[in-house]
Amino acid sequence: MTILIRDAGAGDGVALHAMVRELAVHHGHAADFVSTPDDFERFLSGPNPVGGALVALWDDAPAGCAIWHRSFSTFRGRETLYLEDLAVLPPFRRLGIGRELLGAVARLARARGAPAVTWVMMDWNEDARRLYARAGVAFEPGTSVCRLSGAALERLGS
Amino acid sequence: MTILIRDAGAGDGVALHAMVRELAVHHGHAADFVSTPDDFERFLSGPNPVGGALVALWDDAPAGCAIWHRSFSTFRGRETLYLEDLAVLPPFRRLGIGRELLGAVARLARARGAPAVTWVMMDWNEDARRLYARAGVAFEPGTSVCRLSGAALERLGS
Repeated sequence: MTILIRDAGAGDGVALHAMVRELAVHHGHAADFVSTPDDFERFLSGPNPVGGALVALWDDAPAGCAIWHRSFSTFRGRETLYLEDLAVLPPFRRLGIGRELLGAVARLARARGAPAVTWVMMDWNEDARRLYARAGVAFEPGTSVCRLSGAALERLGS
Repeated sequence: MTILIRDAGAGDGVALHAMVRELAVHHGHAADFVSTPDDFERFLSGPNPVGGALVALWDDAPAGCAIWHRSFSTFRGRETLYLEDLAVLPPFRRLGIGRELLGAVARLARARGAPAVTWVMMDWNEDARRLYARAGVAFEPGTSVCRLSGAALERLGS
């Protein structure tokens, strides 16, 4: 049994879409998940991409992914890397795939000269917390994600 | 007394740096603030910028700023806008400048075709919460910001 991590590219939209949909369901956000496989294809292959993705293969089967985008830390004054999603499909959990993906994200950050990778974790996600803590991640609790969208965005932005 | 919001550009690095430094101190993160005015100049004027900034002027004096970068929502399948910082200098608080900046960010998101603006709020920041709640922002509490940097990033990414 082997884990292989590779860059996502054209044709990976279907697999990425399925993996992030599972993540959305697992986080209780199925109703907010409206993307399509084509959206992921455009993200991966469009002009001036803001980010990219890594795919984890377990014996050649897509088992997990890490989706990232460029970011900028005003405290560091440097471009950093934002980890949008880290997903491992249920049949492939507890095999070390999350750790391998996080390692690949760390290598990518170093290759890009990014001094930090940041992301947001739901506090109830103890599996994620264990994985991150073992990797030396620093946590800043007591935060809320804020979203301005839909009618509120239209009203405020009109 | 007038509020004017304009795009930041070359030459605004000193003002932006000072405003974000005040924000870092106010949030108890002075030790993490290591950026320089030149870092902001490069952010604003470098090739293939990942984001930009808006400056609020109160009677021509720099009074606040909003610093944003491109982002991608895998749930929406669309590029969105991430609000890295919204800062108003202490002498200019409670004058409506934060609300004007948030409105300008909303207009920018609409102009860029972004269906959402997202950011992270410290839960203790009641002034921010009031401003955002009045603007129709949705909150997702119970989250922690995660950061992989320094020795942990080097170790994991080696």
